[in-house]
Amino acid sequence: MVATKEYSVIGTRPIRHDGTDKVTGRAQYGSDIQMAGTLQGRVKRSPYAHALIKKIDASKALALPGVKAVVTAADFPKETGGVAEIGEGAVQALEFVVSNFLATDKALYNGHAVAAVCAIDSHTAEDALELIEVEYEVLTPVLDVQEAMLESSPVLHDNLRTKDTTPLAVDVSDRRTNIAAHTQLAGGDLEKGFAEADVVIEHEYVTPMSHQGYIEPQMGMAYWNKDGHLTVWTSTQNPFGCRSTLSDVLKKPVSEISVVPMEIGGGFGGKISMYLEPLAAMLSRKTGKPVKMIMSREDVFTATGPTSGVFSRVKLGAKKDGTIVAADVYMAYEAGAFPGAPVFGGMNGVLAPYNIPNFRIDGYDVVVNKPKTAAYRAPGTPAGMFGHESVLNELAHKLDMDPMDLRLKNGSKPGDERPMGGRWGQVGNVEVMEAMRDHPHYKSELQGPNRGRGVAMGYWGNAGMETSSSGSILADGTASLVLGSVDIGGTRAALSMQLAETLGIRAEDVKPKVVDTDSIGFTNMTAGSRTAFAGGWAAYELGMKMRDELIQRAAKIWECDADKVTYADDGVVHGPNDDDGKPRSLTFKDLAAQLPRTGGTIEVGVNINKSSVGPAFAGHIVDLEVDPETGKVTILRYTAVQDVGTAIHPSYVEGQIQGGAAQGVGMALNEEYYYGPDGRMQNASFLDYRMPTTLDMPMIDTVLVEVPNQGHPYGVRGVGEVCIVPPLPAIQAAIAEAIGIRFQELPMSPRAVIDAMLKGQE
Amino acid sequence: MVATKEYSVIGTRPIRHDGTDKVTGRAQYGSDIQMAGTLQGRVKRSPYAHALIKKIDASKALALPGVKAVVTAADFPKETGGVAEIGEGAVQALEFVVSNFLATDKALYNGHAVAAVCAIDSHTAEDALELIEVEYEVLTPVLDVQEAMLESSPVLHDNLRTKDTTPLAVDVSDRRTNIAAHTQLAGGDLEKGFAEADVVIEHEYVTPMSHQGYIEPQMGMAYWNKDGHLTVWTSTQNPFGCRSTLSDVLKKPVSEISVVPMEIGGGFGGKISMYLEPLAAMLSRKTGKPVKMIMSREDVFTATGPTSGVFSRVKLGAKKDGTIVAADVYMAYEAGAFPGAPVFGGMNGVLAPYNIPNFRIDGYDVVVNKPKTAAYRAPGTPAGMFGHESVLNELAHKLDMDPMDLRLKNGSKPGDERPMGGRWGQVGNVEVMEAMRDHPHYKSELQGPNRGRGVAMGYWGNAGMETSSSGSILADGTASLVLGSVDIGGTRAALSMQLAETLGIRAEDVKPKVVDTDSIGFTNMTAGSRTAFAGGWAAYELGMKMRDELIQRAAKIWECDADKVTYADDGVVHGPNDDDGKPRSLTFKDLAAQLPRTGGTIEVGVNINKSSVGPAFAGHIVDLEVDPETGKVTILRYTAVQDVGTAIHPSYVEGQIQGGAAQGVGMALNEEYYYGPDGRMQNASFLDYRMPTTLDMPMIDTVLVEVPNQGHPYGVRGVGEVCIVPPLPAIQAAIAEAIGIRFQELPMSPRAVIDAMLKGQE
Repeated sequence: MVATKEYSVIGTRPIRHDGTDKVTGRAQYGSDIQMAGTLQGRVKRSPYAHALIKKIDASKALALPGVKAVVTAADFPKETGGVAEIGEGAVQALEFVVSNFLATDKALYNGHAVAAVCAIDSHTAEDALELIEVEYEVLTPVLDVQEAMLESSPVLHDNLRTKDTTPLAVDVSDRRTNIAAHTQLAGGDLEKGFAEADVVIEHEYVTPMSHQGYIEPQMGMAYWNKDGHLTVWTSTQNPFGCRSTLSDVLKKPVSEISVVPMEIGGGFGGKISMYLEPLAAMLSRKTGKPVKMIMSREDVFTATGPTSGVFSRVKLGAKKDGTIVAADVYMAYEAGAFPGAPVFGGMNGVLAPYNIPNFRIDGYDVVVNKPKTAAYRAPGTPAGMFGHESVLNELAHKLDMDPMDLRLKNGSKPGDERPMGGRWGQVGNVEVMEAMRDHPHYKSELQGPNRGRGVAMGYWGNAGMETSSSGSILADGTASLVLGSVDIGGTRAALSMQLAETLGIRAEDVKPKVVDTDSIGFTNMTAGSRTAFAGGWAAYELGMKMRDELIQRAAKIWECDADKVTYADDGVVHGPNDDDGKPRSLTFKDLAAQLPRTGGTIEVGVNINKSSVGPAFAGHIVDLEVDPETGKVTILRYTAVQDVGTAIHPSYVEGQIQGGAAQGVGMALNEEYYYGPDGRMQNASFLDYRMPTTLDMPMIDTVLVEVPNQGHPYGVRGVGEVCIVPPLPAIQAAIAEAIGIRFQELPMSPRAVIDAMLKGQE
Repeated sequence: MVATKEYSVIGTRPIRHDGTDKVTGRAQYGSDIQMAGTLQGRVKRSPYAHALIKKIDASKALALPGVKAVVTAADFPKETGGVAEIGEGAVQALEFVVSNFLATDKALYNGHAVAAVCAIDSHTAEDALELIEVEYEVLTPVLDVQEAMLESSPVLHDNLRTKDTTPLAVDVSDRRTNIAAHTQLAGGDLEKGFAEADVVIEHEYVTPMSHQGYIEPQMGMAYWNKDGHLTVWTSTQNPFGCRSTLSDVLKKPVSEISVVPMEIGGGFGGKISMYLEPLAAMLSRKTGKPVKMIMSREDVFTATGPTSGVFSRVKLGAKKDGTIVAADVYMAYEAGAFPGAPVFGGMNGVLAPYNIPNFRIDGYDVVVNKPKTAAYRAPGTPAGMFGHESVLNELAHKLDMDPMDLRLKNGSKPGDERPMGGRWGQVGNVEVMEAMRDHPHYKSELQGPNRGRGVAMGYWGNAGMETSSSGSILADGTASLVLGSVDIGGTRAALSMQLAETLGIRAEDVKPKVVDTDSIGFTNMTAGSRTAFAGGWAAYELGMKMRDELIQRAAKIWECDADKVTYADDGVVHGPNDDDGKPRSLTFKDLAAQLPRTGGTIEVGVNINKSSVGPAFAGHIVDLEVDPETGKVTILRYTAVQDVGTAIHPSYVEGQIQGGAAQGVGMALNEEYYYGPDGRMQNASFLDYRMPTTLDMPMIDTVLVEVPNQGHPYGVRGVGEVCIVPPLPAIQAAIAEAIGIRFQELPMSPRAVIDAMLKGQE
């Protein structure tokens, strides 16, 4: 717990600006949009995981009264190479982007969109789906990343070749393959490292695909105006990226596209990419009417982007005293049907908390016949760190060391070399580890049978990127704050508070407004834990510009030089003494009230683009009990420690940590995409895809370690993502302590646990 | 026709940005807004022009199933003095503002709101109106400005005393009165002036109230959120003024109010003030639901703001050679039920086109039992200039001079003293007069019986005031332009073109967006012919800021000092020669495309507040024929000449001129508020209130005289208002030539004409 600067607004817990709207049901979500003559659209999806599309006949559907149009891939501009923005700053071959909206020659997963239809109402549109006749030639599906990497595997894409940033042992450059990319990070001398080791542990790990599980299904509404201008209303984390991608796939300049982001009913990364919007746009173009499309929950599960299933292998070598000398990590990610798995999440995270002199990390991005994966909270990192943290806990057990002492012994500190290159800045990794070690939870006794305690660390690098913002001062002594960042749970509050801090006013006196893509400059997505950092920085710069202009106004009022005027952090503007020698000052509110009479309001705009993000480290402590009769795991106590930089709104930070931990618990204990051998997802509903409920979770205690990010005016680090990482290995370790079984495959569901326990008794 | 600077975009006629939306019915007007649970509101109005309200009993209405709430004046915060913003930069005693929304102790005109009700649907709300029982004590109404000024007249407001900026002959300071204000402008020595005159003409004139006649009736929708935040959707010219007034009357800080301006179906000044919004707000507060209110056409006529009926007296003295030596003008304006008639419109305009050494102009603001007047295109000026222009034409006739020669002899020029003080800047008054004199229309022969030609001048000072704007650059080489000014017919196009000109790009490459009061800084109303001037200036400053930042980016790309880089007006950025001595340059589009990779987009904001408006002069020539059988006047030919400064979008300018002329023709020939002796308006429908239709109007030829306003970067003058002024006296003069009758009262309707002709034959 590093001492932080004294703030007036930052660190307090004001009521969120959008709270009342949300609890009273007045916040406008995508499905609230009503326009005259709106048609309802639905998507025809492939029942097969892998099949050639021989023919699509929509004539019967189009003959159904009330059906207005059908679109297939043939309606979209043909691609001749090129790339599209797909979020998180990443780009992808355009043909893959288009083909995920709507299958071209092949259906590549169960749920893959094959055609879209719109009609006067949703029932008619659904009836029409049945009447669209698709002739398939069913192919063998590839459902597992290890199988997909075999030379003998069926191949999804004829034209896919491996992109490699590292020379592979074998030349794959001209081979048809499912391996889209291989990347390697390495340092030191691995052979030498393992030779020095007294203990070596090596295991393989498997984690399944899992879904973000947001409450609100994807929706998209589009109106393609007669002048060619396209307006899209959507629940998105990424309105400007949505605009860019639509521009790419529709061959339409961005200025002919307006994206109106609605309130978002959960995203967690899953609402960075688009699914329905291009279809709605094309249906609107064909019909001249607005077209609205909303997914069913089954659509959401089968056809949006879960996170990757991952196969990994971790080999770790340490000396007897606990010094880790070598790490060899192999991880293969399921990208789903198109390339782009979050391999870097795992590769960057896996060794980040530790100084390991000799290491190699190999990552593979592999296509399989499952939905194209998307970002999910610290994308790729929970699965990527699971194996290594597990091995580390096993190593502590073997060396008879406290697992936190082992971590602290090897913990990475500011100035140390980073596995991904460069050196660590002011990071709070060790502070988090120390806070865990010293926490009453960790020091407490855990008694009783079938009970265990586990710990694990997590890492997420956080993101910076581009944010535009504008604002003005109102005569009643408040300020407006115009945002291009949608609010996925704290944006309005966290950014308003930073502007308030800068101006020396109350958080309640800033009026945040999330606007559409026409009303503010380009702003990257709300994701990557970048928004409080980048948007806050923009708010700070706005505030500083406002301060400069207020100083000018005060100088005008006092008829003195502006350089004689200062703006204090409490929002009081001080000038030179008056003729009687008395000090002169004006509060922000005083000055705001005088703006209309001294020239007008102050309107400012900024764009910032900073890379000095502060990486985030977290560590969780979990106590649990395994029911030996059913295999059910009950979490008894949970403490989440995290370096959050400066906690702008601690309640929100705590909420983020609790939410992330809960999702991690879901990944550890229950959640998985369950496929039959035919490649059909068998649990595409909330009844069958088991997410934790409030009844499954204890209160999650949070410990906010505040090591300010030196690369931000208020020391902000992103806080939303790293918290999903530690639960998987922490729970695995606790179960190992409880029942002596160290799982290598997730989820550790009652079935898996009881199977393992029964097997152990054989 | 003064030579103007060479422009690339300014002066062209691009398709308007909002054209497609408007012609396809997709533009969103107030009545298009739909929200779950919206209640419909209606207003109970006084059938009496003057009556004490003894009691309001809403119990029966509230007992009607489906009725949710009733509000009366008792529900509003009690006023204890203070003033409210009422538009055009004016303020008014708050009690009057509140009392016009909703009568307090007295109903002061037929149509005055007495109570408002909301219910689950509009039919129920209308039924409820009948059930609200109001007990009145009917008083004698005061319906005429001359009568109202008599000491013997009944008085509307017990507490009204005359505000006087000039000592009146009699002391009225402590007398109950209907005269709210008296103002005088004077110069020279009036007695001496008239003593020098060879010819003196004096007449009295009467013009009735008339209405803007916009197509879309007033609407207002409000949602008072549980956290106290009020959102209002409205068809308004004045979203920020609406916010201010709501703040004043509801005792609520402006930051707790959001006003969302919808597209506007005509305003002409009539949608600067508010009527329904405070009622909808209070009904929403009571019910917790959104409340929507839309006026009927009868409501619009009886309860919004027409322009003043005016009584005036003009005495003019001239020498035989046509030199005007003295003018004495008296004008009394009907303010309607509350003070605030547009007296200054008439006073500033009446003598503006002429140099008259000795003059006096007295103006009176007088309350009568008619609806509170509002702004209507060049407010107060058509009626105010009618008499003087008429006397001038008669003077020309008497002196046997050409009326344009008479005007040119006395015409005011740059540097001359202005009647309202100061000296004229670069105005085009004489250029307009010369263009009229030299126009083929004026030189043509007009033959046939009962035909006549008339000319007259008009003046409007135009307005500046405050405008905020923001904008950014898109990677496809376009720019966004965020506006707080609603588009009443050209805002988007005229401002986009000025930004395009500044950046050296096409008008189509600017994307204008009119936003709500949360999304941009304070911006004054779209009115006063200020928007192309002030908004254009803001667009220019935005463009110049963007240029500065683009220069920085180019310097970064070329790795040179920014002062070595220049931005040419064609949008090409030039840098120092490269190492091979070749010149380096980048177009705006090139640079825009590189912004994402050189730091991010450019987002800028500005607020401007300039008073260097360019006043507008216009002169019209009309030929007409009077049907001696019916008295109907048919306009044969119409030419409107106007100094428009720099015509940004000439088609829009021509449209404004034609629209203004058509409204002036309506005032001259047909339009009037017709009251019975009981004070009830007898023609409150478009069937009975006769506006000109396309069948009544010939094509109006326009002549754009372009004398650039030196006080604006692109020479912009407001163009929308002055064009309504000349038709009244020009048509009166033409009728005088046609049938020998010089009317002193408007409208010169068939009935009035035939009556006068029959009277002449008696």
